[in-house]
Amino acid sequence: MKSKQNLSGWRLKWYEIIFEADTPKGRLFDIIVLVCILLSVLVVMLESVDSVREQIHVWLIRAEWFFTIIFSLEYIARIYVVSERRKYVLSFFGIIDLLSILPTYLAFFIPGSQSLLVIRSIRLLRIFRILKMVRFVGESQNLMIALRSSKYKIIVFMMTISTSVIVAGTLMYLIEGPEHGFTSIPTSIYWAIVTMTTVGYGDLAPQTPAGQTLASMIMIMGYGIIAVPTGIVSAEMMHLKHSSKITTQVCPHCLKEGHDVDAKFCKYCSGKLN
Amino acid sequence: MKSKQNLSGWRLKWYEIIFEADTPKGRLFDIIVLVCILLSVLVVMLESVDSVREQIHVWLIRAEWFFTIIFSLEYIARIYVVSERRKYVLSFFGIIDLLSILPTYLAFFIPGSQSLLVIRSIRLLRIFRILKMVRFVGESQNLMIALRSSKYKIIVFMMTISTSVIVAGTLMYLIEGPEHGFTSIPTSIYWAIVTMTTVGYGDLAPQTPAGQTLASMIMIMGYGIIAVPTGIVSAEMMHLKHSSKITTQVCPHCLKEGHDVDAKFCKYCSGKLN
Amino acid sequence: MKSKQNLSGWRLKWYEIIFEADTPKGRLFDIIVLVCILLSVLVVMLESVDSVREQIHVWLIRAEWFFTIIFSLEYIARIYVVSERRKYVLSFFGIIDLLSILPTYLAFFIPGSQSLLVIRSIRLLRIFRILKMVRFVGESQNLMIALRSSKYKIIVFMMTISTSVIVAGTLMYLIEGPEHGFTSIPTSIYWAIVTMTTVGYGDLAPQTPAGQTLASMIMIMGYGIIAVPTGIVSAEMMHLKHSSKITTQVCPHCLKEGHDVDAKFCKYCSGKLN
Amino acid sequence: MKSKQNLSGWRLKWYEIIFEADTPKGRLFDIIVLVCILLSVLVVMLESVDSVREQIHVWLIRAEWFFTIIFSLEYIARIYVVSERRKYVLSFFGIIDLLSILPTYLAFFIPGSQSLLVIRSIRLLRIFRILKMVRFVGESQNLMIALRSSKYKIIVFMMTISTSVIVAGTLMYLIEGPEHGFTSIPTSIYWAIVTMTTVGYGDLAPQTPAGQTLASMIMIMGYGIIAVPTGIVSAEMMHLKHSSKITTQVCPHCLKEGHDVDAKFCKYCSGKLN
Repeated sequence: MKSKQNLSGWRLKWYEIIFEADTPKGRLFDIIVLVCILLSVLVVMLESVDSVREQIHVWLIRAEWFFTIIFSLEYIARIYVVSERRKYVLSFFGIIDLLSILPTYLAFFIPGSQSLLVIRSIRLLRIFRILKMVRFVGESQNLMIALRSSKYKIIVFMMTISTSVIVAGTLMYLIEGPEHGFTSIPTSIYWAIVTMTTVGYGDLAPQTPAGQTLASMIMIMGYGIIAVPTGIVSAEMMHLKHSSKITTQVCPHCLKEGHDVDAKFCKYCSGKLN
Repeated sequence: MKSKQNLSGWRLKWYEIIFEADTPKGRLFDIIVLVCILLSVLVVMLESVDSVREQIHVWLIRAEWFFTIIFSLEYIARIYVVSERRKYVLSFFGIIDLLSILPTYLAFFIPGSQSLLVIRSIRLLRIFRILKMVRFVGESQNLMIALRSSKYKIIVFMMTISTSVIVAGTLMYLIEGPEHGFTSIPTSIYWAIVTMTTVGYGDLAPQTPAGQTLASMIMIMGYGIIAVPTGIVSAEMMHLKHSSKITTQVCPHCLKEGHDVDAKFCKYCSGKLN
Repeated sequence: MKSKQNLSGWRLKWYEIIFEADTPKGRLFDIIVLVCILLSVLVVMLESVDSVREQIHVWLIRAEWFFTIIFSLEYIARIYVVSERRKYVLSFFGIIDLLSILPTYLAFFIPGSQSLLVIRSIRLLRIFRILKMVRFVGESQNLMIALRSSKYKIIVFMMTISTSVIVAGTLMYLIEGPEHGFTSIPTSIYWAIVTMTTVGYGDLAPQTPAGQTLASMIMIMGYGIIAVPTGIVSAEMMHLKHSSKITTQVCPHCLKEGHDVDAKFCKYCSGKLN
Repeated sequence: MKSKQNLSGWRLKWYEIIFEADTPKGRLFDIIVLVCILLSVLVVMLESVDSVREQIHVWLIRAEWFFTIIFSLEYIARIYVVSERRKYVLSFFGIIDLLSILPTYLAFFIPGSQSLLVIRSIRLLRIFRILKMVRFVGESQNLMIALRSSKYKIIVFMMTISTSVIVAGTLMYLIEGPEHGFTSIPTSIYWAIVTMTTVGYGDLAPQTPAGQTLASMIMIMGYGIIAVPTGIVSAEMMHLKHSSKITTQVCPHCLKEGHDVDAKFCKYCSGKLN
């Protein structure tokens, strides 16, 4: 929160309300914005349902404009209040904030009966407003650490899956062929992904004995393979939980950290710990 | 069990039979009620099967009334025997107990040939009788502790899933559109949930190459994401198991920790533990 | 292997060959029987495929009789060689051994053109021969211990699943009704199981918005719930692995077991360990 | 890398570039080959899509030959540069390298309008080029160790699954029979695998109450069974993670063990570690 520097008076006060959630007012502001986001997403959803749109079309447009104006004001306030404007505008949430209000204005400036359908779909991009919700979550740190520290294992795992899926899809294309729906290798790879992840739509299914045998092998492989990422994440989680057994104590002699709770002497410099 | 206070004589005796399961009679009462619940649920199920209902309709109605009277007597006995009646009636199981007998009486007082079908469905609410079974389970504590202590991690996880599903559903609605069955955003979100949880009915399935590519990404994401809750719960379970084995007791002689709950002497200096 | 007592001479020798796998001859016997079981299962499978049966019907019948005679001889030898015959015949594998040869003889004694189909299906019971394979597995002990020690947790889990599935199925029957395929409560419960286990055939799928909303909730619940048994088993497995850190050493003073590898003194009687 | 011995001068230099990835040039060579593999796999995929092939058929054939020549040169260079040629040619990747270039030449030498279709499918074997990618992965070691050390547990698990699937498939064949699509035991076993792995295509689904009951049991079993491999791998992963952190080093002063790999002094007695 370096953008807080250089602020003073009412701009600092508003900065704390809009960008932070440590004060009662700041928390209230965040909750109001969160509720507005959820309601506006609901409006976009309802608009896409034919039967609902026909009945309350006018109300949906009004709600649409109401939320767009609210979010526009919020966007302007955020730009006005922050000290490093450029940084905010180009940040992830700065771009999301802009994208979530733009489509409604675009639909206003580019009218025309034919393009209505296209405009409506542009409007749907406002669904990205929901991504703003992530801002209100500070608890996701631990999950991120667990996932990041098993980054390489996950990459190896993903490459194994990718190779398996490509080889399996190609073999299936050779075995079943276009006459049973496996019209091309990409389609067959799509089938292999649907099968290996145990989703199994059934829009494509092997019909020859050879194809069914191969499919069975892919399924059992996919069923077993799910154990690997689970094992990786479990081990990380437990490691995180376990490492909380390490004290935050700093050695008074060499200032190093990471001592076990049962350590009496610093393991780096042999100095006595408190 | 504060409602046990102020009871004496036969009311105390019956209280122990009906509400507790520590005495042989109390246990017998509980088992009889449990069997009655299971049988009455079976009757409701059979009643919904057309071929069965036509054959033994009369018997099902008789069984229906038999169990309703049994449960009514049980409900009256529970109210009569408990000291804080208001508290019981408004408790979770008090309400469930009432709801499980009410529909049969309602069907009796509101007759009429047209409303028969509706009444029959109200009757089905008695299926909630099975929820009473939970009362007989005392082992669920540990599972609850494990789930509760990872509450925040699970909330973050659920929000990530929700956001992913809404964004994925909306993108799919834009890509595939109503002509391939994705008639509205809520429907597309339903599809995204079906896909991400690896259920995969196949009533809706992407048909364009772009849609199949996006679907593949969602599937792999959903397949990998299942590792996260599993990892969380595994870590909690292991923590519970581990921490229940070691006391926080310190040896009074060498002041070392980490003694097993069944240890009588310090394993480091042979000093007697408390 | 108490049935080994009271044996002598060639019966003891044959007992070791047939019932044990510690000698080279015993191991060879086991492997031959295992191969025969697998081949006879293959014959039963091939017999059920119409196109294969038409071509090599005679050979299949011959193979059928060949394996039946082999297994009959094996069964007689087992009975002859064991000392406590009654115990073997009534044991799990004694019954399986008998069931795996009986159908072929039954088909011989109960002929008739009309009953042929039924007899063929009785024959299929010989598939239980494959269960004999379990006998050759001694490694399954650890898995069993892990599953047994989390018995109560698994029962609680199963009851939660059962209640959820019954409540969900009944609600779905009320919401969707017979006109969308949910013809009875048992059928709806079947659908709920298919959905909650993330199998998702798609032969039954909700079509109303309310039904799809409920289905979504069931799916997410089922998806999250899979974490619970996985967590339980993971914790047990890890515990097993961890408890191998406990020595098999017995305290020379009080004769108690269960000492940690780093313990110097008995934690029960403070006697010095070796 | 024993094949590096006996090399000198430019052959040693090229050996390091082609077979190793420790030098900048060696890394560049590997990345170029990797990109070529990915592009050539993409070409094979595009060739199988009818609409794409019709438009850019000539370009695909040219790309096809371009990559075949590139890989041929690479194969020749590998053979030329290595000291133990026989060993490389017969190694796993030696065979894969050959198989990935052969089909294009075969299609050239065996022309004919009728066999065109077959040749095209032989060409697809070049997809195995992607297996070469595995060579570039050195991180898969840990995963392999975890899987290998739980080898026996996995075999027991696989045998349990196999037996369950065969018994379940046969019972289903008896219950549902050919009139509901379960035309033979192998088909029914295929259904049992599809169900137990929670894939659930829905091309085959039980229709009788008895069949649906059995299917429900198989599903719940399959859903619970997934916990077993996950538990096994989780336990292994955690063991690996834990054991890599602690040295087997003993403190030369107090002879205690359990020191972290980064410890310089004993944490119990402050003595210096080696």
